[in-house]
Amino acid sequence: MSLPISRLDSAQADFKAKLSALLAFEASEDEAIDRAAAQILADVKSRGDAAVLDASNRFDRMSASSVQALELSQQEMQQALASLAPERRAALETAAARVRSYHERQKQECGSAGFSYTEADGTVLGQKVTPLDRVGIYVPGGKAAYPSSVLMNAIPAKVAGVQEIIMVVPTPDGVKNPLVLAAAVIAGVDRVFTIGGAQAVGALAYGTATIPQVDKIVGPGNAYVAAAKRRVFGTVGIDMIAGPSEILVICDGTTDPDWVAMDLFSQAEHDELAQSILLCPDAAYIEAVQASILKLLDGMPRKDVIRTSLANRGALIKVRDMQEACEIANSIAAEHLEISAENPQQWADLIRHAGAMFLGRFSSEALGDYCAGPNHVLPTSRTARFSSPLGVYDFQKRSSIIHVSEQGAQTLGRVAAELAYGEGLQAHARSAEYRLK
Amino acid sequence: MSLPISRLDSAQADFKAKLSALLAFEASEDEAIDRAAAQILADVKSRGDAAVLDASNRFDRMSASSVQALELSQQEMQQALASLAPERRAALETAAARVRSYHERQKQECGSAGFSYTEADGTVLGQKVTPLDRVGIYVPGGKAAYPSSVLMNAIPAKVAGVQEIIMVVPTPDGVKNPLVLAAAVIAGVDRVFTIGGAQAVGALAYGTATIPQVDKIVGPGNAYVAAAKRRVFGTVGIDMIAGPSEILVICDGTTDPDWVAMDLFSQAEHDELAQSILLCPDAAYIEAVQASILKLLDGMPRKDVIRTSLANRGALIKVRDMQEACEIANSIAAEHLEISAENPQQWADLIRHAGAMFLGRFSSEALGDYCAGPNHVLPTSRTARFSSPLGVYDFQKRSSIIHVSEQGAQTLGRVAAELAYGEGLQAHARSAEYRLK
Repeated sequence: MSLPISRLDSAQADFKAKLSALLAFEASEDEAIDRAAAQILADVKSRGDAAVLDASNRFDRMSASSVQALELSQQEMQQALASLAPERRAALETAAARVRSYHERQKQECGSAGFSYTEADGTVLGQKVTPLDRVGIYVPGGKAAYPSSVLMNAIPAKVAGVQEIIMVVPTPDGVKNPLVLAAAVIAGVDRVFTIGGAQAVGALAYGTATIPQVDKIVGPGNAYVAAAKRRVFGTVGIDMIAGPSEILVICDGTTDPDWVAMDLFSQAEHDELAQSILLCPDAAYIEAVQASILKLLDGMPRKDVIRTSLANRGALIKVRDMQEACEIANSIAAEHLEISAENPQQWADLIRHAGAMFLGRFSSEALGDYCAGPNHVLPTSRTARFSSPLGVYDFQKRSSIIHVSEQGAQTLGRVAAELAYGEGLQAHARSAEYRLK
Repeated sequence: MSLPISRLDSAQADFKAKLSALLAFEASEDEAIDRAAAQILADVKSRGDAAVLDASNRFDRMSASSVQALELSQQEMQQALASLAPERRAALETAAARVRSYHERQKQECGSAGFSYTEADGTVLGQKVTPLDRVGIYVPGGKAAYPSSVLMNAIPAKVAGVQEIIMVVPTPDGVKNPLVLAAAVIAGVDRVFTIGGAQAVGALAYGTATIPQVDKIVGPGNAYVAAAKRRVFGTVGIDMIAGPSEILVICDGTTDPDWVAMDLFSQAEHDELAQSILLCPDAAYIEAVQASILKLLDGMPRKDVIRTSLANRGALIKVRDMQEACEIANSIAAEHLEISAENPQQWADLIRHAGAMFLGRFSSEALGDYCAGPNHVLPTSRTARFSSPLGVYDFQKRSSIIHVSEQGAQTLGRVAAELAYGEGLQAHARSAEYRLK
């Protein structure tokens, strides 16, 4: 049986080049998809509900007579919740409670109260923090419909204090996913429309007679949805456009190799483009993980996806030591970073760039994906260098407060006027000078 | 003399439609500019320094022999600072000190320390906050070159802990602006390249042999720069693409009308698309402001720009009362909101959406533009509904911390496995189940 995964060694001369090649991922921007999305958006902007209805009936093979008919009733939502097996409902509710609790802590800790301070001359400066008014959550239909994502997108918005959450979820051929609808009820989603694609993005961004305009759209979608989100950015806020999911495991060789193999599988099973990488200083341990991969692969229901993902984008990398593993991890800036090691904190202290860090061998990524509490919407494709997990802060915004006292205006007015003249902006200068006695 | 500014009344039946028409602003997306920017980016990506050099020599009429020659030496930077008139240098230094002090407070107050907490079973959850490694600041050349913008973009990055700040500023025909270079020295910019346009954005986003790759690009630029920034978003972070600047003044009729007229001018003088609006419940006061506008306009050096801006995009709006003014202000979500009134705080409490609020008649926007302390890079075009002033938080990012204890894994593993099976992700489920005893 051929090796299902690349093997690299950081001591090789061409290691950096090989690592770059492994990480390279170019989101294909299909001009045809972009143009199609732009046309649908323009249609929704000009024709509103009629355009949304036409597109939904056409692309999702619906036969609705109005957009109103595409909104789910509270009764239907409650029925979806009631239809769940008790243990599944309990799991969903436990996950929701834990996610809510973490994000409440985050709200408390991340400056949501704003601040203000008074200077000696009576001038007050500060910052006011307020929630967004209304948020749209896009939930994909079909096989990639994840109830956990509904929780992860809606709960931080709710905790932030967003007054109305509108969910859109396409239901091709009218097929609904009760687990997704139940998650929406549990997360506190206010209204649900069974629409999708660029038409749903347009409806949320511009508003129609039936669907209210939102201030921000979050949640993953297909290429049409991503193209539409890019185009409405500015009219509304959007979250990051996600790339393929990634896991990077740093292991000191003390974790059961089956566990690490399965953690690599858990990322690889998402799709063929997902990326699973192991960094380890122990060559014998890497052999053991590879043996585990070979042993466990055939037993996995999604083995074809896992095999392709590991073969094309995975790697087992021998490093010199754990310090070097951390340096490489910083250059990779992975979405998920497991530090499966004794005393993981010492290595975590060296990490500057990662979406989420899973410390210690009991912290498998799967726990974080569903129910540990922190968000599973994380920066991919090295964007953890400059961006953060989805959080309460994504549903809040800040306003500066400037309350200059009469005395303060005497000092500030002179400085402002001097600089305004320097920039050739005389009205700025005079406006400041008017406040001088 | 004809009225230089529209007059509206919120009691008119068609007020909402008229207000919408007034606010409507469609950023023209020029396909030719976008294509040209894309070509330059592709060239920089493939040819690096050579492409940057060619574009700079061609578009900025430079005659450099290498990109190294386009970097300014520390000596040249220090000479720019030394060349300033003492009062101008002092003003710049005072402004920088105040901006630094506000952003240090912001860093302290907005959760920069991160957080972590331990649950009953020993599981630790939290969030680590780290600065970006390296940031690029785009500074326009020519007439729109504002030293105050250099301070406002660089200082929050520095306060956040960014290790290296690279500034790019085009110098068409080799003409440098000493005030801009001096501001860069005062703000702590590390390296300055005299390049601009899409080629500068590409160099910062992809890196070249001479110019290091950054993690985020901030700062305003022309249409080519904006198009290039949109396209590199994802490879690096970017700030908001700014629209025309706006001021909204809510006045209760107790401020000297000349002051309010000049505050409206101070926005209108930026460019013909800038927007200046007054909301006031007092009809006689509105007449007085209009008289002040007529009286003061001819004395302004930039009167042509001001006249066009006020005529095309300005308005004096009579409202029923101050409460209604605040409601309208929330729907406008202005970049700059002056509440020029007695006891302004009572009205500020009603404001949910604004980039910056200037309270009381001594807080003219010009003071905030230069030296009050809060940032002058603010959300425009109603984006204050969902976005914030540039701040320390724009140069930091967060990583989730998940350290599950052995005991915690027993509870979380069961919940995660239940949900993973529900989503058809068996490797996720087994990875969680491996951690069960």
